[in-house]
Amino acid sequence: MGKTRIGVKIMPREVILDTQGRAIEQTLKLNGMPQAHCRVGRFVELEFDSAPEVARTQAEEIAQKLLTNPLIETFELKDL
Amino acid sequence: MGKTRIGVKIMPREVILDTQGRAIEQTLKLNGMPQAHCRVGRFVELEFDSAPEVARTQAEEIAQKLLTNPLIETFELKDL
Repeated sequence: MGKTRIGVKIMPREVILDTQGRAIEQTLKLNGMPQAHCRVGRFVELEFDSAPEVARTQAEEIAQKLLTNPLIETFELKDL
Repeated sequence: MGKTRIGVKIMPREVILDTQGRAIEQTLKLNGMPQAHCRVGRFVELEFDSAPEVARTQAEEIAQKLLTNPLIETFELKDL
């Protein structure tokens, strides 16, 4: 049984004030760099000893129970 | 000219002690949850008013100059 790697991409909900994103936008402006709208989230790589279909269920459980706050964040699983 | 969205996935280098990842692994163990090796990074979504090929160059510049510390982190660009 091989290793299965799954990524969890966690982003702030659109309605939430993303202070890190605003800080980056300000810095881009102040430094004359290319302007971009910016949102900052987290990326967690999980590596399981289980088969892909089991690992995906486990990753979903970990993301829901431990990694994210559903009030302010949404997550997506990514196969790596 | 439409909007172009590019993601920047930033992960700690393998040789760097990833304290957040260790904390999550400990919590999984202590709570009897599925075990996984865990690494924690960041994900930044950038939205540009420029064409895709220009936006990619701009995203690379922003990632190198502003978002990452090459001593301890690596980054990848992702089309969104």
